[in-house]
Parts: sequence; structure tokens; C-alpha cells
Amino acid sequence: MTAETLCVGTEILLGNIINTNAAYLATQYAKLGIASYYQTVVGDNAQRIRECVSQALGRSDLLVVSGGLGPTQDDITKEVVAELLGRKLNVDETSAKRIKLYFDRRGKKMSSNNIRQALIPEDARIIDNNNGLAPGVLINLSAKEAAQFGKSADNAPMILLLPGPPEELTAMWEAEVAGILQKYTGQVIYSAMVKICGRAESEVAELLDDLIRSEGDVSVAPYAKTGEVHVRVTARAEDEKDAKKLVKPVIKEIKNRLGDSVFTTHEETSLEQSVVELLLANGLTVTTAESCTGGLIAGRLINVPGVSEIFKSGYITYSNKAKRKIIGVKRKSLEKYGAVSAQVVREMAEGVAAYTKSDVAVAVSGIAGPDGGTAEKPVGLVYIAVSVCGQVTVKDYHFSGNRAKVRESSVASALILMRQCILEYYSRLTFGDNENE
Amino acid sequence: MTAETLCVGTEILLGNIINTNAAYLATQYAKLGIASYYQTVVGDNAQRIRECVSQALGRSDLLVVSGGLGPTQDDITKEVVAELLGRKLNVDETSAKRIKLYFDRRGKKMSSNNIRQALIPEDARIIDNNNGLAPGVLINLSAKEAAQFGKSADNAPMILLLPGPPEELTAMWEAEVAGILQKYTGQVIYSAMVKICGRAESEVAELLDDLIRSEGDVSVAPYAKTGEVHVRVTARAEDEKDAKKLVKPVIKEIKNRLGDSVFTTHEETSLEQSVVELLLANGLTVTTAESCTGGLIAGRLINVPGVSEIFKSGYITYSNKAKRKIIGVKRKSLEKYGAVSAQVVREMAEGVAAYTKSDVAVAVSGIAGPDGGTAEKPVGLVYIAVSVCGQVTVKDYHFSGNRAKVRESSVASALILMRQCILEYYSRLTFGDNENE
Repeated sequence: MTAETLCVGTEILLGNIINTNAAYLATQYAKLGIASYYQTVVGDNAQRIRECVSQALGRSDLLVVSGGLGPTQDDITKEVVAELLGRKLNVDETSAKRIKLYFDRRGKKMSSNNIRQALIPEDARIIDNNNGLAPGVLINLSAKEAAQFGKSADNAPMILLLPGPPEELTAMWEAEVAGILQKYTGQVIYSAMVKICGRAESEVAELLDDLIRSEGDVSVAPYAKTGEVHVRVTARAEDEKDAKKLVKPVIKEIKNRLGDSVFTTHEETSLEQSVVELLLANGLTVTTAESCTGGLIAGRLINVPGVSEIFKSGYITYSNKAKRKIIGVKRKSLEKYGAVSAQVVREMAEGVAAYTKSDVAVAVSGIAGPDGGTAEKPVGLVYIAVSVCGQVTVKDYHFSGNRAKVRESSVASALILMRQCILEYYSRLTFGDNENE
Repeated sequence: MTAETLCVGTEILLGNIINTNAAYLATQYAKLGIASYYQTVVGDNAQRIRECVSQALGRSDLLVVSGGLGPTQDDITKEVVAELLGRKLNVDETSAKRIKLYFDRRGKKMSSNNIRQALIPEDARIIDNNNGLAPGVLINLSAKEAAQFGKSADNAPMILLLPGPPEELTAMWEAEVAGILQKYTGQVIYSAMVKICGRAESEVAELLDDLIRSEGDVSVAPYAKTGEVHVRVTARAEDEKDAKKLVKPVIKEIKNRLGDSVFTTHEETSLEQSVVELLLANGLTVTTAESCTGGLIAGRLINVPGVSEIFKSGYITYSNKAKRKIIGVKRKSLEKYGAVSAQVVREMAEGVAAYTKSDVAVAVSGIAGPDGGTAEKPVGLVYIAVSVCGQVTVKDYHFSGNRAKVRESSVASALILMRQCILEYYSRLTFGDNENE
């Protein structure tokens, strides 16, 4: 079964609102094992809506239309669809009563437009809206209607009309639509996510090239976030058990090839969460000393519920004086090497770890721009130091992009370096400090 | 001139990412006076990309394609477009050098895939990417190519290929694309932005109702962000001077109605920037003491270039001990009122201002959830204190949503309260501390 989404609304075409409905519906199709190849947005224009609906009915089994069910003259989705199929629109008495009741309860007068929201194409299934006035509509096309779009009777498509407001659409989907559609799909799609940090997308793509190209039952697709690459592994099968069985060895293979760069195989786990879990698992407390990132590393760590057990305090030491006074960076080091240097960032990490008696400390100092760069120390140069139980690692980075991008990259890199240093610390403890290991 | 957007990427169809590019491009078309009737999303599939490109070229003057310019096997946009038009793909030496340099600088090996990013269809215009490796491409279709899509030579469409990562796409648009397209549109659209903080969207909409409904030459459209409402005022005219003349009195009227709630009429000015400018203008230094926001307020202040003049250090005092030891919150207050209380947040602001000798201090303590809420102090309860030259204001807030949302609302509210307290401090100095003023 294939589905496609048509979002109706001039406000989306004008960029006034971001189309979150399309993303929501996409995840719901995936959950139901319904493939989806197209999403379209069109304005409140009868001719263009008709054109898009016709095209979609010709190429997909299910067309989900969101928007255009409201009370204004702009809202014409039902009218266009009914006309296209040659079905009459009748007032649904239950929906009409519901709408009237809504206005009565609020002591407001119902406008004549609102009754349009109770108009339903004949022979359609009505889907209640518990969060708004416009009911949803499901239409199974007849053999004759299907033929109009080049489809046979066995293959007759369906149209589902849903309201545009996201909270109404999602509530309706969860309450009724998901259950209705489940009956139509015989198959299940199962997908899992492998999240990788500290590797470029191109590097991951090369290492997984054969898996990505493979046209078997399991598909592998990487995509990049700042500092991370997420690889989605998807399989289709008759039931979830079989689909999982297909996905499992591929996940294992990816983990084998990418080793410690894989920080989680859980969809919901963020990079900061994997770092916090690593700290918690080893009973390590943590602190931060930030210059150009100005609190954003701490901000991400504190995203994680339960972090209070290991994170007590953090420091934004933006000025040289703050670096000296609060976390004990040496005046001499600042003078000799400058605030953005390997030496200073090392002293920041050591100092803040000592001051707060934390097991792990991360420190960042860099030139985020747009000003402050020199030939020797250009904008984008960032030093990060991580101390794990007294062992300090310092790395320099050269980020591109504007101030926000440099800072975002610095935060991601700091989290990645923390994770790497903690893992290395424990692997040394286990295997001995052998460079050839 | 009409434009349409085609976003290529299976990750959008799977709902893994929300399609913000389509919304961004939509606002940019509007700015240039270009009408747009369709947005489409399609996966990384050659046949379907070809189908969508062909359809769009037949009905629009400009097709903007985002995504599919990356280094992986999934990235096939250029190949499909070149094949469809019958143009060769050649390696652009400048782009190739740029890519090589990128890897050299980082001491990394360039994968063979990366060179694909330098492939450009012949006779196309290259648009530099200063934030990533994939250059953009602009193709003016020849008469023969146009005929293929039912278009005459006078009416030959253009294709613009842009990278998928939003920061690359937007930077490229601003640096080069907007300028190129402006030449093709005869009309000028001028739009200005009024940014408002501390008022609900419904309140703003009600105060500006007549302006929003007006169908004159100037359109007024509000939309909401966390803690802010942005009102876009747009006019279309034959030249910029005339358009500006139409916009100016409307901006003035909005400022009259909304008073101090307007924090800027500059498109690019963020809330944190308006706060930092207010601090700089009054020669005030600033510091932060954050609990549940964990560094994010400082993080936003440090977004602003030049903040180093007034921001020396900030503190994340997540534990009670950190609140006592670092910024001098009284043990008795923590015991009697709890860490999330008006008294404690007041002491945090006073303490951190005194400790750092700052003129302005902001402190936050709240329950971001998901755990830690009680009947008396539910999740979403947040106290914010602002001290301006020793005068402390404390407010309590009740936010809804998950942990991330509560924290985001807290950060915005802290910035708004800072701004308000500074303005009030100086208006008191000017007008005397008269409650009836």
C-alpha cells in the first residue's frame, strides 16, 4: 500500500507556517508499513487542488489531504473532492448538532459558514473530531470513480480528508485513523536507527557503501546532523518479528564496522544522553568551563533528565579574569599563549575539575567570530580539553560557518570528545596503557 | 514569475526531519514578489525525481530543488537533472580544489565520493557554498530544452539546485541567489518586521485586527515564536522607495499600539541582541545564575558578537550546594522555601551580582520535568529574578510542555524580564518612582 500527502493551505506556500503535518503523517505511514513517495503542498485554489488530487489518485493507493476543512470561503477541499468524484455534499446532522452545541456552550452565535463544516460527501465515512469543529472524511472510490484515474476496481484508491490544525489532525489519527488503516495493510515495516558520532557522513557512507547500495529486503540510509551521522535501517515483512529478524544482523554489521563511533541504537537517545548515561554508569561527576560556547554544553547536558546526580555546577568563563579568578588559569599562560590555546584550555579543564572536585571536566575556548580572528588564529579555531580522573586530552578544531555554526559544532565536538576520553580511560584501565593495543 | 519548490530526500518522506527549507524558500519567494503555487517532496529515487522535475518545469518559471547534492550514492539530483536535459556533467576544478582543501586542512583523507560534489552540468552557473562542500547550480534552459516541457523560448524555465542542509541553503540564498533572482522580477516587494516580546499572539492579533484584515496595498501578518510575536509588514510597488513609503506609517502605528513590547523593527535583530544592546547602551555588565536552564540564557547572550565587553562570567548552579557555595544562597532559605522558590531565586540573583560585581544579574530556578513535580510545585513552575543595580524583581511562571519546551520558555522569559526590568529602572530614574506614572 502506498500513501501520499497533500497539504492544502496558502499559509504554507507563503512560509508563514512550517509543514509539521507532512512530517507527522510520514512517520505514521512508516509505522503502519505504508510506503510513501510524494508529499505536495498546494494553495487554496480549486483548479490546482483538483489537479493535485487527480494526480495523486492515479499513482497512490491512499491520498491523505490535510487542511481546507475550515469555515472560511478559502476552505474548499471537500467541495473540490466531491465535485471531482461527482458526489453530492449532504449536511451530516450529528456533525451539525455538534457544531451548534459548541457555539451554544460558549454563548456565541454560530456563523452561517460554520454549517459548511458539517457538509459530507455522500457514502463517505465520517471521522469524529474531538478537538475542533471539522470532522474528517474517508472515501473509498467506487470502480467507476477509480477508472477516472486509471485504476481498476481491485485497485481503487481511498481519499482521507483531515483538518489542518496539527493538534486536531494528530488526535484524529491516533483515535481513529490508525486503527482503520491497519486493517488495509497486510505488511509491517520495522525500522531502527544507528547513531554515529565523530565521523563525516562521507566516511560513514563509504564504510557502509555495499549496505546502502544493496537492493535487498533491508534498506540502509545515512543522514548527517552536526557532529553526528544517523543511519536508518528499515525492513518490511509480514509481521514485526520477521522484520526485526531482518534488521538485527544489519545493525550488528554496522556496529562492527564503525566500532565505538556508534553511540546508540535507540531512536530516542541523543548524544548528550549517551554521554550522561556513560557518566552515570561509571559513577562519574562532571563539570564544564566554557568560553565561546557560553553555557551551551552545560545546556545540552542538562537536557537529560536525571543529570542532577552527576552535574552540580558549571562555569562560563568568558573573560580572561574569570578564567584566572574562578578556575585558576595562570596569568602567565594567558599572556604567553593567549586565551584560545591548548595550554589555557588544559588549565581550564584541570582548574574546574579541581575547584568542583569533579571526575570529568570539559573546557572550551575558541574564536567564534565574526571578529577576533587573526592569520595565526582564524575564526573557527577552537580548543577543547577533557579531563577524566586527572588525565587530560586537548584537541584543536577548525570549524567553518558563522558564529552560531562554529558554536554548535564546538558543542557537538565537546560532547564527542568527552565520550571518547571516558571510553579510552576505561579501555586503558582494562587493557593497560599500551599504545599498540 | 512563478517558482516552485522540490525537496529531495527520503528522510523527509520518512518524517525524520521537518521540511524547514520549503518554508524558508516560500518566504524568500514572497520577498522577491515571486508567486508560488506548489511544493513537492520526493525521495532519493531517479524515476520519481525525473517525473517531479518534468512536471514542475512544465508549469513554473523557476524550479528550486533542495537536497541530493551530498557525497553519498543516495544523492542523485544533479545526475537526474543533467540526464533529463541531455547535458554532460563535468568536474568543476575550483569546486574540486575547495573540497580537497577542506579535507587537507582537517588532515583527513578525501573519500572518492566527495569529488562527485564538484560535478556540474555543462553551461550551468555555479553558486559558491561557503558553509559546506556542495556548490549550488543555476541552469537556464535552452529553447530546445524548454520545448521538451511544453515551454517556448521566451518562456524557458530555470532550475536552481541547492544543498539540503538548511544552514548551507539559507547562506547561499542570502549571499548570491536573492541577488540573481531580483534581476528577473520587475516588481519590488519591501517588507519590514516588527518584533514584539511578552505578549500573546492572540493579544497582538486583537490589537492589530483592523490592520491584519485590511485588504489595501500593505499586508500585516503576525506569527508566534516562543515568547515573541513577529509581525511582518509587506508592500508591493514599482520601486523600493514607493514600497517603503507605504510600509513606514504602518510600522509607526504598530509601535504606537504596542509600546515597549516592540523590541526591534530590524529583521536580523534577535531578542538577546536587543537585550545586549540595551546593556551596552547603558554601560551595564551582566551575569547569570542558572539552574533548570543550565547555561542556555548565557548561551543566548553569548550569541551576540561583542558581548564580551559586558559579560565576564556566568554560573550554572544546578545543585543546592552549588547555589550555597558559589553564589551565597542561604541554607535556611533552601530548607524553608525549597530551591524552586521566589526567595531562593532572589538570593541567586543578588548573590551572583555581588560575587561578580555585575550591574545586572538574572537567575532562574524551576521544575523542567519530567520528574520532580509535586501538587504544590508542579512541572512547569519556574521562578526568574532579575537584579538591576540592586533592585530585584522576581516573577513566577507556569509553562506547559515537555522538559525542552519548559526550558526554552524559561530562557525567552528571562531575556524578556531582563529587558523589562532595565527599561523600568531607567524610566523610574527619569520620571521618579511614582506608581501612578
